[in-house]
Amino acid sequence: MSPSADSNGSVAAGKPTPGRLASVYSEVQKSRLEVSLPLPSVLKSSFHVVDGPHSSAAGNPDEIAKLFPNVFGQPSEMLVAGDSEEPASEQSLKIGVVLSGGQAPGGHNDRTKGSTLYGFKGGPAGIMKCKYVELTTDFVYPYRNQGGFDMICSGRDKIETPEQFKQAEETALKLNLDGLVVIGGDDSNTNACLLAENFRGQDMKTCVIGCPKTIDGDLKCKEVPTSFGFDTACKIYAEMIGNVMTDARSTGKYYHFVRLMGRAASHITLECALQTHPNITIIGEEVAAQKQTLKSVTDYITDIICKRAELGYNYGVILIPEGLIDFIPEVQQLIAELNEILAHDVVDEDGQWKKKLRSQSHQLFELLPQAIQEQLLLERDPHGNVQVAKIETEKMLIQMVETEVEKRRQEGTYDQQFKGQSHFFGYEGRCGLPSNFDANYGHALGYAAGALLQFGKTGLISSVGNLGAPVEDWTVGGTALTSLMDVERRHGKFKPVIKKAMVELEGAPFKKFASMREDWALKNRYFSPGPVQFFGPTANDINHTLTLELGERA
Amino acid sequence: MSPSADSNGSVAAGKPTPGRLASVYSEVQKSRLEVSLPLPSVLKSSFHVVDGPHSSAAGNPDEIAKLFPNVFGQPSEMLVAGDSEEPASEQSLKIGVVLSGGQAPGGHNDRTKGSTLYGFKGGPAGIMKCKYVELTTDFVYPYRNQGGFDMICSGRDKIETPEQFKQAEETALKLNLDGLVVIGGDDSNTNACLLAENFRGQDMKTCVIGCPKTIDGDLKCKEVPTSFGFDTACKIYAEMIGNVMTDARSTGKYYHFVRLMGRAASHITLECALQTHPNITIIGEEVAAQKQTLKSVTDYITDIICKRAELGYNYGVILIPEGLIDFIPEVQQLIAELNEILAHDVVDEDGQWKKKLRSQSHQLFELLPQAIQEQLLLERDPHGNVQVAKIETEKMLIQMVETEVEKRRQEGTYDQQFKGQSHFFGYEGRCGLPSNFDANYGHALGYAAGALLQFGKTGLISSVGNLGAPVEDWTVGGTALTSLMDVERRHGKFKPVIKKAMVELEGAPFKKFASMREDWALKNRYFSPGPVQFFGPTANDINHTLTLELGERA
Repeated sequence: MSPSADSNGSVAAGKPTPGRLASVYSEVQKSRLEVSLPLPSVLKSSFHVVDGPHSSAAGNPDEIAKLFPNVFGQPSEMLVAGDSEEPASEQSLKIGVVLSGGQAPGGHNDRTKGSTLYGFKGGPAGIMKCKYVELTTDFVYPYRNQGGFDMICSGRDKIETPEQFKQAEETALKLNLDGLVVIGGDDSNTNACLLAENFRGQDMKTCVIGCPKTIDGDLKCKEVPTSFGFDTACKIYAEMIGNVMTDARSTGKYYHFVRLMGRAASHITLECALQTHPNITIIGEEVAAQKQTLKSVTDYITDIICKRAELGYNYGVILIPEGLIDFIPEVQQLIAELNEILAHDVVDEDGQWKKKLRSQSHQLFELLPQAIQEQLLLERDPHGNVQVAKIETEKMLIQMVETEVEKRRQEGTYDQQFKGQSHFFGYEGRCGLPSNFDANYGHALGYAAGALLQFGKTGLISSVGNLGAPVEDWTVGGTALTSLMDVERRHGKFKPVIKKAMVELEGAPFKKFASMREDWALKNRYFSPGPVQFFGPTANDINHTLTLELGERA
Repeated sequence: MSPSADSNGSVAAGKPTPGRLASVYSEVQKSRLEVSLPLPSVLKSSFHVVDGPHSSAAGNPDEIAKLFPNVFGQPSEMLVAGDSEEPASEQSLKIGVVLSGGQAPGGHNDRTKGSTLYGFKGGPAGIMKCKYVELTTDFVYPYRNQGGFDMICSGRDKIETPEQFKQAEETALKLNLDGLVVIGGDDSNTNACLLAENFRGQDMKTCVIGCPKTIDGDLKCKEVPTSFGFDTACKIYAEMIGNVMTDARSTGKYYHFVRLMGRAASHITLECALQTHPNITIIGEEVAAQKQTLKSVTDYITDIICKRAELGYNYGVILIPEGLIDFIPEVQQLIAELNEILAHDVVDEDGQWKKKLRSQSHQLFELLPQAIQEQLLLERDPHGNVQVAKIETEKMLIQMVETEVEKRRQEGTYDQQFKGQSHFFGYEGRCGLPSNFDANYGHALGYAAGALLQFGKTGLISSVGNLGAPVEDWTVGGTALTSLMDVERRHGKFKPVIKKAMVELEGAPFKKFASMREDWALKNRYFSPGPVQFFGPTANDINHTLTLELGERA
C-alpha cells in the first residue's frame, strides 16, 4: 500500500513532494509553479475593514432573518489601506479549509497567510470526520497554480442534520479553529452560512468565510463578479471548439453538436459562443423564457441548416448547454408524467400505456427518437425516476434534426446531406491548469478570506472586485452570505438557498451574443482562440462574460 | 450568398484576406502567422540530388513491378549541398497541390518555392473536375502555421477508373503542370504513385510527389520517420488526458475511459500513454497478437480496478484506441456471422435466430451489453452490414466492466463502487494549430517536394530525416513510393497498397510502455503536460514515439 494513500486513497496519491517534482511534473506544470502572483495593493501593507450598509436578502428577508438570527443583516466589509482603529488580530490564527462540490481550476491558490492551516480531506465529510492534513508551505508548494482539487480533494456531502452540526462543532473545538474557509458553489456557500450561524449560536469563536468556486459561473452577484474556475474552463473549451470549427470548415460535411458542461445555467455555453462565434448556440434561459418546445428548437436548428445549404455550406458548429432539457417546460411535464406512470403501471409492448399521457406529452414522446424513448423507459435512478441527466442532449438533437431534415427532403425543400457529430466537453476543462486570471483571482480570494478572519468576521463570502483593472487595483472585501439568499419551500419547511445566477437575457453578454448570432449563423465567423490560458499576448485577458458585465455596470 | 463561397461552400468561407486578419484571427493565430520557420541547411543554398541504391517493394516486388512498369525500382534521392552537375531547372514550375484524406495539423505549411502553385479544391475531386485556385503568396499568407485544411479543403475521393485518370490527365495538360504534390496518408500516396505511373506512361511531363500526412501515425518507414499531424494531435489529446487525470484524482470516484482517434493502428493511444502515464492502456496490436477476447480485455481492466480498490483508489484513467474492436478476432467473426444472418433471416423476438450463430459467437453475443446487442442488430450501413464504426467502444467496455464488477461483488471479491465516464478525443485534435515540430516538418516536406520536382523526379514521397537533430541538420530527399508498397488481392486482382505501419510490439515505444505499465497501473504516475504545442520550455520537444524510434535506430 502506498504510504501516502489514506483510506479513500485520495490525498496526495502519487503527488510529489517538492524533491520529487522534477520527475513527475511536466515542464508546463513546473513553469506554472514558479509564476509569482500579483496581489491587490490593499493586501500588501496594513489595512483595516470598513463596514458598508447593513444587508438584506435576495428574497424573503423575514424568513432569512428567522433562519439566520445571528448572522442576518451583516454589513458588507471593504478592506482599506492604513492602520485600523481596532487593530487586526496579531495572533497566529488556526484556520481550516475545505473544498466542496465539483472541481474548478484555481482551488489551490486559495490560501490564507501567516496562520496554521488545516485542509479537511474529501470535502465537508472531512470536517465531520475530523480528517485533515496540516497545510504547511512545503505541503502546499507543489499545488501552486496547478489545476484540480487533488491536494485535499473535494466532496459533495452536506452538513445538514443536528448530528452533523455537532460533529462539525467537535472538530472546530478539537482543532481550536479560529476560522473555516469553505470553497465552493451556491450549495456549499449556503452550507458555509449555516455553519457560521450555528457556530455563532453556540458562542463558538470559529468564524466561517465562503469563497466562490464553480466553473458553471452561476454563483455571482454585484459584489462577487464571478467565481474562479469559469475563466479557465471556458478558455479550454473554446480552444477545443475553435479546433472543431477548423475541422468543420476543412471537411465541409459535418455539423458538430457540442454539449458543454453547465446543468443549471448556460453561462459556459454563452461565454464559449462569445469566444468562438459558432453558427448556432442554444441558451437554456432563452428557451425557457420563450417557452420553446423541443420541436421549435429542432426547427430553429434545421431552418439555419437549410439556409446554410442554400449558401453552399453543409457544415457547421452548434453549441448546446448540458442542461437544455431542464429548460423546456413540456419535457419537464412529460418526465413528471412518465415517473408517475412508471411507478404504478406496466409499460406494455403495444403501447396502451401511452394513453395515460396527456395529449401534449404523448405527442412529444412520439416525436422523440426511438433510442431516447427507450432510455426514458428503461434507465431509472434508485428511486425509480427517469434519469434525465443521462440523456445525451446533443445526440438527441442530432437525431431529431435528422428526422426533420428527412421530412424536408421528402417535401423537396432540402436536397443536401446532413451529418451530425456529437461532442461533450466537460471534465477536460474542470481540472485544467488555472488561467492567469483564475490563478490571480483565487489567490486574492484566499488572502481576502484570511483578512476577514483576522478581523473576526463570519458568515461572509470573500469578495474581490474591480476585476477589469490591473490586479493591484482590485478591491477586497466580504459580502454577507445571507444577502445572496432566498428561501425555497421543501417538505413544508423554508430552506435557505443562494439563488443561482442565471444568464440574464437583458444582460450585456446575452445582448452582445443576440446581436451577432444571425451574422454568425449564415456567414462563418469562426474564431479559434488556441491555447491562451497563460502564454501569449492575450494570456491576461479576462473572459467576455465578465468584461461585458463589468462594462454594463461601469 | 457570400462572394467567396464556391459551389460546395468550402473554400475560404469566412477566411480572411490579409487585411481582414486583425478582426477575425485570434491573437494566438496571429502570433503563429509571424513565426518564421527554420529550414534544413541543405535547402538554403544550391543543392543537387544524389541517387541512392535502386529500390524494391515492401512485399511482392514482382507484382509491384508489373503494376508500376514506369516508376518501379527508382532509387531514393538525397539532396546534397553544392552545385549539381545536372543543374536544377531554373524555370518557374507550374505545380498543383492537393490535400487528400482526413485532416491533420500542418497542411498549410506544405509549400513549394519559386513556382506557380495551384491548389485543387476539395481533394482529388478538384483534380478531376479541374477546380482550383492559384496559391499566391497573399492567398497563402493567412494559413501559415494554422491548423486545418480549410485553405483548399480536403476530400476522400480516389482517382481510380480509366475515366478518372483521363480527367486528371486533362487537368494536368490544361494547366500545363510540371508537378503535382499529393498530401495525404497511405491511400492518398498510393493514389499519387498510380498518377505518377499513369502520367509517365502517357509521356506527360507532369511529375507526382507525395507528402506524408496523417494524425494516425501509420504512414512511416525508415526514410519517412513520421507523418505530420501526429505530433500536434497527440499533444492536444495528452493535454486533455492530463486534465482528466487531475479531475479523476480530485474527485476520487470515476474511471475515465478515453477513446482516442486512430482506427487502423494504435500509435496515438501509445503516444498519449507515454505522455501521460494512465493506469490502463489497451493497444490494439497487442490484443491481436495475443488473440485476446473481449472477455479477456474486460477481465484485464477489472483485475486492475480491483487491485486499485485494495490500495484505496476507486478512480483511474484508461486509454482505448478507436479501432480496438477490429483487433479482436472473435468480434470480427461474430460480425461476419451477423452480416450473413441479417442478410438472409428474420431476427425473431424469441431469439431463435441466435441458434444460427456458432457457439463461440453466440457466447460473445450474450456477453455484450444489451445496448450494443441492439446496435448490432438495428444499425446497418446501406449495404445492410453491421456498422462497427458506430460502436462506442469506450461505453461498451464500461458496461462490460460494470457487469464483471457486479459479478465480483456478488462473489464477495470486490466491495467498492465502480463508476465509468466515457470520452472520445478526435476532431478537437485533428485541426489544432500545428505544433512547432509539425510546422517545421510540414514546411520542410513542402520544400523537399518542390526540390524533387525541380529535378524532374516522380513517384517519390518527400522524405525528411534526422528529425532528432536541430532543423538545420535535417536531411532532405525522396523515397520511391513503390518501395513502401505491397499488393492485396481484391476481386481476383492485385491491388497495390502502402502497408499501414502498425505499432511494433518489438519497437522501442511499445517496449518502453510495457516496461512502465505495471507501475502506472497501481501507483498513480499521472503526468499532465498542459498546452505545449508552441510555448514554454518543451515547445520544441518531439513526441515520445519518434524520439524512441530514432533512438532505436541510432
